Amino acid sequence: MVNAVHETGVLMSTKSEQRKAVLREKLVHSAKARIERDGMAALRARDLAKDAGCAVGAIYNAFEDLNDIVMAVNGLTFQALGETVRGSFDGTEPPVDRLILMSHAYLGFAVDHTNLWRALFDLDMSEDGRVPAWYRAALGDLFANISRPLSELFPEMAEQELSLMTRAMFSSVHGIVLLGLQNRISGVPPEQIEQMIAAVLRRIGNE
Amino acid sequence: MVNAVHETGVLMSTKSEQRKAVLREKLVHSAKARIERDGMAALRARDLAKDAGCAVGAIYNAFEDLNDIVMAVNGLTFQALGETVRGSFDGTEPPVDRLILMSHAYLGFAVDHTNLWRALFDLDMSEDGRVPAWYRAALGDLFANISRPLSELFPEMAEQELSLMTRAMFSSVHGIVLLGLQNRISGVPPEQIEQMIAAVLRRIGNE
Repeated sequence: MVNAVHETGVLMSTKSEQRKAVLREKLVHSAKARIERDGMAALRARDLAKDAGCAVGAIYNAFEDLNDIVMAVNGLTFQALGETVRGSFDGTEPPVDRLILMSHAYLGFAVDHTNLWRALFDLDMSEDGRVPAWYRAALGDLFANISRPLSELFPEMAEQELSLMTRAMFSSVHGIVLLGLQNRISGVPPEQIEQMIAAVLRRIGNE
Repeated sequence: MVNAVHETGVLMSTKSEQRKAVLREKLVHSAKARIERDGMAALRARDLAKDAGCAVGAIYNAFEDLNDIVMAVNGLTFQALGETVRGSFDGTEPPVDRLILMSHAYLGFAVDHTNLWRALFDLDMSEDGRVPAWYRAALGDLFANISRPLSELFPEMAEQELSLMTRAMFSSVHGIVLLGLQNRISGVPPEQIEQMIAAVLRRIGNE
């Protein structure tokens, strides 16, 4: 549907295309603000239409469905998260320290933007082919930042093993942050999350 | 509200109490089957009432709200999860092997009962005092199983540090299982989840 719209768009007037691009940007801006404030589950098409000053039906001309809008918001979130993580280290630190700095930056982002961060993981992506290439690329950039210190720590690891370890490390830190922020389940007060991350990473780095 | 009902219940006829207990059991049984099949988000009061052959209003006489019913289902899930984890080792294994066996059992439970397992973590428990004592006790039992091999691995750790490491270990394995099962995000095919868990646990155990 989205592809069909884009292909037809080549034949449409530039003005109509521009109007649609402006509407798309308005809708994503509004969805981002609403998700940040109320969480993804509270997102309603009629509220977005009201914010953007358009009819509800116009949303489905600009996007396939609400999931597509959340995916666009997640793109912005991923970009901001990537910048936060990259800005947390300068590359001269010993590898375990760098992993801890990145993980603490990840925790900080999750604390500061909890609803946007949750939407990265809660968005339904159960259908095949729903994950855009740029989404996979952004994930790849994040993983590359984790792989570098890991390859310094474990120079003997083959690429495939390093790739698995990178995903395992990210998932471990994600789990500690996720259950730590839902502190009713993990039973750990938020201020101890940083300690937990550092303890696990130092053990893995054999320090 | 639930407490008020229970307190009033002491003055009610035994027959009325028994009827309510039967209804509660029917509703929990129905909710468990529906969550297992369709996930927690699809749970509707009118469907439960239909299954149990009662009016929708009767549900709110037996339980405070749908969350309370999900909490009761989560109690059964936690019990089953605990049995699965306890049944995965005999206690003679080296500690890292025991941690890996338990974690693989945890993964197996999550694969076999994905929706019930997700409900353990997705239930909204944002209000204070909504977590029953038996829920905390079940969580405590699970953590005790993790603490034992960890205390063998790290005999030098003080109790508070061991408690933090236990929660960090559980959260790490949970993160690997969670993102592994949502394989669109972690990019890891499910069959590699066991390898990731073992790799992280062996590193932590310094093997």
